[in-house]
Order: sequence, then structure tokens, then C-alpha cells
Amino acid sequence: MKRALLSVSDKSNIVEFAASLVKNGYEIISTGGTFKMLKEAGIAAIEIDEVTKFPECFEGRVKTLNPYIHGGILHRRDKQSHLDQAAELGVEPIDLVCVNLYPFKATIERTDDFEEIIENIDIGGPAMVRSAAKNFDSVMIVTDPSDYSLVLNAIENDENSVEFRRSLMIKAYEHTAAYDSMIANYMNKRFNDGMGAKQFVVGKKVMNTRYGENPHQKGALYEFEEHFSKNFTTLKGEASFNNLTDISGAVKIAAAFGDENAVCIVKHGNPCGFAIRDSLLDAYTEALKCDPVSAFGGVVAVNGVVDKALAEMMNEIFLEVIIAGRITAEAQEVFAAKKRIKLFEYGSDKIVLANDAVDFKHIDGGFVFQDADKVAADEISNAEQKSKLSADAAAMKDAEIAWKVASLTKSNCVVYVKDAAMVAVGMGMTSRVDASQCALKKAEAMGLDVTGAALASEAFFPFRDSIDAAAAAGVKTVIEPGGSIRDDEVIAAADEYGMALYFTGVRHFLH
Amino acid sequence: MKRALLSVSDKSNIVEFAASLVKNGYEIISTGGTFKMLKEAGIAAIEIDEVTKFPECFEGRVKTLNPYIHGGILHRRDKQSHLDQAAELGVEPIDLVCVNLYPFKATIERTDDFEEIIENIDIGGPAMVRSAAKNFDSVMIVTDPSDYSLVLNAIENDENSVEFRRSLMIKAYEHTAAYDSMIANYMNKRFNDGMGAKQFVVGKKVMNTRYGENPHQKGALYEFEEHFSKNFTTLKGEASFNNLTDISGAVKIAAAFGDENAVCIVKHGNPCGFAIRDSLLDAYTEALKCDPVSAFGGVVAVNGVVDKALAEMMNEIFLEVIIAGRITAEAQEVFAAKKRIKLFEYGSDKIVLANDAVDFKHIDGGFVFQDADKVAADEISNAEQKSKLSADAAAMKDAEIAWKVASLTKSNCVVYVKDAAMVAVGMGMTSRVDASQCALKKAEAMGLDVTGAALASEAFFPFRDSIDAAAAAGVKTVIEPGGSIRDDEVIAAADEYGMALYFTGVRHFLH
Repeated sequence: MKRALLSVSDKSNIVEFAASLVKNGYEIISTGGTFKMLKEAGIAAIEIDEVTKFPECFEGRVKTLNPYIHGGILHRRDKQSHLDQAAELGVEPIDLVCVNLYPFKATIERTDDFEEIIENIDIGGPAMVRSAAKNFDSVMIVTDPSDYSLVLNAIENDENSVEFRRSLMIKAYEHTAAYDSMIANYMNKRFNDGMGAKQFVVGKKVMNTRYGENPHQKGALYEFEEHFSKNFTTLKGEASFNNLTDISGAVKIAAAFGDENAVCIVKHGNPCGFAIRDSLLDAYTEALKCDPVSAFGGVVAVNGVVDKALAEMMNEIFLEVIIAGRITAEAQEVFAAKKRIKLFEYGSDKIVLANDAVDFKHIDGGFVFQDADKVAADEISNAEQKSKLSADAAAMKDAEIAWKVASLTKSNCVVYVKDAAMVAVGMGMTSRVDASQCALKKAEAMGLDVTGAALASEAFFPFRDSIDAAAAAGVKTVIEPGGSIRDDEVIAAADEYGMALYFTGVRHFLH
Repeated sequence: MKRALLSVSDKSNIVEFAASLVKNGYEIISTGGTFKMLKEAGIAAIEIDEVTKFPECFEGRVKTLNPYIHGGILHRRDKQSHLDQAAELGVEPIDLVCVNLYPFKATIERTDDFEEIIENIDIGGPAMVRSAAKNFDSVMIVTDPSDYSLVLNAIENDENSVEFRRSLMIKAYEHTAAYDSMIANYMNKRFNDGMGAKQFVVGKKVMNTRYGENPHQKGALYEFEEHFSKNFTTLKGEASFNNLTDISGAVKIAAAFGDENAVCIVKHGNPCGFAIRDSLLDAYTEALKCDPVSAFGGVVAVNGVVDKALAEMMNEIFLEVIIAGRITAEAQEVFAAKKRIKLFEYGSDKIVLANDAVDFKHIDGGFVFQDADKVAADEISNAEQKSKLSADAAAMKDAEIAWKVASLTKSNCVVYVKDAAMVAVGMGMTSRVDASQCALKKAEAMGLDVTGAALASEAFFPFRDSIDAAAAAGVKTVIEPGGSIRDDEVIAAADEYGMALYFTGVRHFLH
């Protein structure tokens, strides 16, 4: 006769699981709510205090923290001395432990009441999970209701191998590690400004990528809060590691303008095309003009639905990835013949962003951690006019677009926008004036007319040289944070050329 | 009479702590090794089984998992019903819990023996830590020997406030979260190729940075394995968030050539200067030539000791950060008058790298995780000659330097090296040929002669255009992974210009 201990907070399928265990010859030990539920379902179970020989006490704070429970779980079946001691002490073996924990996450999402939150820190549960995991050699530890059928299958088909139990053990320690990480992060957010003495970044695997950033590296995608599992669907192909980082860069830009029909083309994490238009077809056409060379093999993010007409247009060049709110069946059909194109959607009319509150970056020996950077709603409306001339509404709209795109482009960057489309971009360079000049040279080579464009720089222009270059190209509006010791020279240059110059007072470095 | 439960694996200062607790009127309860140690030191302590009324069993697997222990810790002192029940059950309060855990980390560092590793997963310890933390309202939980004096101070000076106990509680959950994260990561590394169903990135805070990547973001530095605490010393100023990421980029490059005297200058994460010379003074001088404009306000990594002469040379322009193996006292004196310069050292003759085995990157909704990218020792010696001409030893040395620097420069990048110094670099751009051309244009503007240089590209040249541009500038040696469908055209171009062309077969994208 095997014994299973069932004590779950999430009671889904527990009755069926218990019934199947009984059918397979298990005796059930259970606690409080679980016991009651099993009893009502007519399943024979032993109440926990019959085993513990001690009453449940302190309003349930102490139930299972007991040597008859933990001894029953933890004693080694391969050591005679343990078996003898168990017999002598009246400790009977427990062969399966099915436990999931008090809903700490649901509690902090529901309430700020600290007493209630503290009460929802499970103590007995993790102890049983960890005990059973330690003794996986003899004990099955089941922490996830979605594993019940797997466990029953192992029991019924004689596949309850040590490898199987080891995989349950790993899952169990992942479960307790994630639980306490969540508690520690919550407490640090509540009491230490989110920057506690320890920081826990915990992800759930969505998939292995075929490889990492390069073929000799292993890689995988991990999610917080099921963002990918719930929202991100692969329609064709398989996202690579680099696709995923490019997609992240592209969707942030394409979705930065609310519900507007925006399209962003990204290569190596940086935008090489962006436009907003009344139709997505026009937005894509304009976005592509900025740098069709870089767009080759690029990632296109469409803030809306890709229909057949747009798909046909996109199909004219080689794109590696299309990510959109949705891609219609007809549009998917258009791409069917192209082997290398990959299609992903959010299953929504628009791109769905997770909008994580935090950001982090690996560095040699550790990582830097920070609040996520966001462009505030009022950054443009609060921008200070520094030049004599002001910009009209259309120019300010271009300046706003340039500003937001610049905030999402690698530093040093400059972004030139005209009629709601990016016409030039310089990015990722060690010198801002180099970025400005490369961008303009490229626009010239592409035959793009920058006359009348708005220019944004994500950090201040240290010298007037970038303004000189912009004026020569016909730029009419400049937006930047300000803050250089040579701001006066920059302002003087703008006035000299009859440009409108605005300072936001906010910097958006991105590295 | 208060009661303290002491059960520690790390026994440093435990005797002194216990003695002080006794002096402050605490009764001590203790277990196994800790009890023995206290007894030998003449400190009165109650052995655990007097409290548990149950023998320690299964070779110590079950000692403290007992309702008299956990009830004593967990019952609420502010509820009469709990106090009544405690009295009725004979559960006496435990007011302080001092526990640290079995040395799982030391064990996995010492052995691969799985049975020993499993035995070193602590079960009773984390349960007590978590119980006591949950009831921080009444109980002090002490998990770190370096907190003993703080705790005694609180007891002795009536500063044992709920806020103090709350801070101990947070530390306790950090402790158990880190412990189980380590177990889960270890198991996943051992059995799931390092890419388990959950991934835990855990850092210990080194410091808050004044702000994050931008002033409106909070930021902090977290370390693995005490890399910064042990090796990284601030001599002057305070590292900003962006300094830290730049330093990481710079030191990886400067230390990529073993003990050679290398200097790397970085701006916005990318190198704008690099050289190897017999002396560091010469290396710095050459590194600076590549792009003195970008170097302004840059981060300089010196793979060696900065002495007075080098410091005086560096002091001629504005550098924001110097990071070196060591900076001599005389050298520090040179910089003393400069307000804005920041000085950091490793306290070693050379740069000390952590060389983390893993790498990760935040993306919207989660993160991507991978093995770290490393240039293998034999990548250059195994590179295949594709051109008719071969490179001589000096040219191959330049090619190797260019290759390694390119592997640590943001994609798309091209690196031109001549006489062991970088003479041009294009980086972080969406198009490779743009990167090539920008680099050459810049070198020309700087008056640098690229004739005879070696060119590396971290990924293949998709077209011959970059080779055309390189040949026009006088480049003699090219190294790249190969793998383009137009490799033949690239090889033909190299032969046409009489260049030596090598394919490594390995790509080093970095984003």
C-alpha cells in the first residue's frame, strides 16, 4: 500500500487525481480544504492529524510541519537503518506528495493589505515540496495540476523511473525558488524602492531557440507573466534568438503611437524604416523608402492587421520576419511559397506590448538593473521652445515621432522625420556628429529629400556641428533634451538658420 | 525569558553571539553541531529534542520539522486564541531564530557526487527561516553572521523595532530564494543543458547607481559571485549606470589578448580606440589616434598599471573613466585636480575578468538567455585561406586583433587594424557596407592611413561592396566568417585586388 499526501491551494482536478490514485492502490492523506473536498466527492482519505498525532493549530499556521510527515517523506528506503528507525518511531512512508502553494501572487495582485499578504506566505507547503524533492529517489513530488495525467501515466504504465521523479524534483525546486523570489521581489518593491539587496529575475521558458546570438551558443526565450504564451503566436517559421530581440525593438517603436497605423522595420535591433499613415499599406511603403538596403532580411512590425494587399507588397522583397497584430489567412497564403519568411502575430487588432516595468543588462560579473525607460505623455507638450521661430502643428507632430523613435534607437542616435515618416537615421555610434552625418549621407544616396524634416537627438547635441549639418540638409525643426554647456551655441545656430528648436529636458539614452 | 533557536552551518562568531544573547536574558535552544560547539564553549543551551519531544532521526534529515519548533515560532503573540492554544499544547514561544543553510554552493563547487550534493540540500533550515520571517512581527530571523552585532545592538539598545525585524524578514526570503534558485539552476545545468523550464538570474547588490541609463530611471549594480566586491575598487568618483556598461565593454576588449599591454577606449559601449604596444603609454597614445573626438568623455580600459607618465598623458584630454589593473598613487595624484574623472582598479597587475558563462538580454515580456560568446583559441589558426595570396605573420596578427575586437563590437561592425592598433571602426549599424564606409570616411577625416591594414567583419560580407571600399583604402588582409551565398564574388574581389582573405567559419554577432 502506497501513500499519497495531497494538500493543494489550487484544487483544479484534485478530485479526479485522488480518485485515480486510489484506483492505483494509494492511500490518501489530506489536509483542511483538500480533505473536505475529497470527502464530499466520496473519496476515502485520512485526515492529516491522524498521521501527525498533533492537532492543526494557530489557525492553520502549523499543520504539516511534523516529523511523522517529513520523516515519512524524507527517510531513505535504500538504508536499513532508516527503515528500522521509521518502524521504531511509527513513521510510515509517504510515496507521493501533491502540493501547490498559497496564492501569494494572486494576493498581491488583489490587495495591499499587508497582514493578508503575510498570511498568504505558505510555510508548510514549500517545506513538503522541498522534502519530497530531496527524496526524489523514492518520492514523487507533484506541484503542477497539469502534471497529474503525466504522473498517473507513469504509475499506471510502470514508467515511474528515477529520471521521471528527478524531472519532478527539478520542477519542485523551480517552484519554491520562484515562490520565494516573488516574495523577496515584492518586499523589496514595497519597502526598498525595487532595488533590494538581492534581485531575482525569473523567467519561464517559452522555447529553446535553435541557437543563441550565434550558432555556437545555446539559447532560449524566457517570459515573465506568460506574455508570449498568451499573446504571441507563430504562424510560420521559428523565431531565432536574434529575431526575438529585433522583434522587441520593432514592436516597441511600432506600438509607441497608440492605435495609429504605424510600421517599423528593424535590423540588428535598430530601426531602418518607420512611418505612420492612414493605411498600413501606405505606412509600409513609406517606411521601406528610408533604407531599402538595410530592410533586406529585416524584421517588420505592423501595428495592425496585415491583409492580402499589404502582404503582396511586402512579398516583393526578402523580409525575414513579419510581426503584426494579426495576419489574415489570405495574407498568410501570399507568403506560403516563401520558404524563409517567418510570420508572427499577437492575435489582436494591434500589437500587444508587455510594457515591463523593469529593464536589465548583463555585464561582466553581474548585471545592471533599472526601471524601464518610457517617454512620458507630456514630454513633447512640455518641451521648451528655445529658438525664435516656433514649429507649426505638422512639424511638431514630426518632431514627436522623431523623438519617440529616437528614444527607442541605440545611442548615439539622430532621427529625421518628414511627413510622419523617418527619412534618415544614424544610430549606435560613438560620436553624435558622425551619426548625424552618416544619416544625411545615406538619405542623399537613397535620393530622399530631407528638406523640411524634424530632427530628434535622444541626448543633447554637445556642439553646433550637428545643427550645421542638419541645416545644410534643409531640416526645419530640432528636438533634443538640452543640457550641454554649449546650449547657447546650439540655440544661436538654430536661430541663424531659421530653425525651430525645442528642449525636452529629458534624455533617453539606450544602449 | 526570551528564547533563541540557533542552528547554523556557518559557525563563525556563533559562540560570541550565543554568549551575548545569554547575557541579554535569552535561553538558547540548539541542534547537533551548533549545540556541541556551544556546550564546549561553556554556554548553557537546551538540546533540540528536549523541545521537540521527538528524537533527531534519519541521520539528521529530520530534526526541527516539528510543531513545537514551528508552533513556537509561528504563533501570533497578538491573538489571545493563539496564546491560549500555545499554552494548551505546551508550545513555548521562540523569539529569535538564527539559521544559515547547508553549504549547497560549496558542495557543488567541491564535488560532482550527486548523493553528496542531494544530502546538502537543507530542508529543516529553510523551513525555520521562512517560518520566522513570516512571523517577523514577533520574531527576529538572523541568517547572516555579519548581522549578529546589528541584532545584538537592537536588543541591547531597545531598537528591536518592527521595521528592523521586517528588514531581517526581507533578507531571510532573499536567502531562501537565492538558495533554491541555486539548486534549480544547478539541476538544470546538470540535466537540462542550462536551459531549464525556469531560469533564475540572481544578483547581490553592489550599490545603487545615482540613476539608471537616464536620470529619470532608478538603477543599481548587482553581482554574481562577488566579482565587484572582491575585485573592483573605486578610487575616485562614482560609477554611473552607463559607466558600468561601458567599463564592461572596454575591459573585455582590453583583456582579450592575455597579458599584452592593451588599451581600449569605449564610448556608448563600443570601442573608438584600441592598441597593443610594448608599453602601455604607447598603447594609449596609439589607441587615442583612432578617434580622439569620440574618446572625449570616454572610458579607457588599461590592461596593466597606470603610472605617473601614462596618467600625465591621459590627463591632457577629458576622459570620464579610467579602469585599470592598478593605478599607482603617483598616477592618482596626477588626476586629483580633475573633478570629473573617475578612477577604478582591480587591484591586480592586469584587468580581472569574471568571464561569466552566461549572457542574457531583456526584451519586452521577458528575456533571452544564452551561453556567453567567446572567441575560441583556435579560431584564427583554423581560419581558411580563401584568396590566392596569403597574409604574413604581422598581417595575421593584425587580423587576429581585428577579429577579436570585432567580436566585442556591436553588430553590424567592421574593424580595421594596422600595426596592432585600430585605425578605423564602424559599428552598430543596420547595414554592413554603411559601417565599412563610415569607418573609412572617418579614418580619412582623422588623417589616418589605412594602407596595409587588416579588416575584420564579425559576420559575413553579403556582397563584395565592402571589399571594394576596403581595397580602395589600401586594406591588405580581410578576415570574416564566410557563409554568404555570394562568397565567390567576395573571394573574386579579394583576388582581383591582391588581398589576403580568410574565413573563420564562426560568426560573432553582438547586439
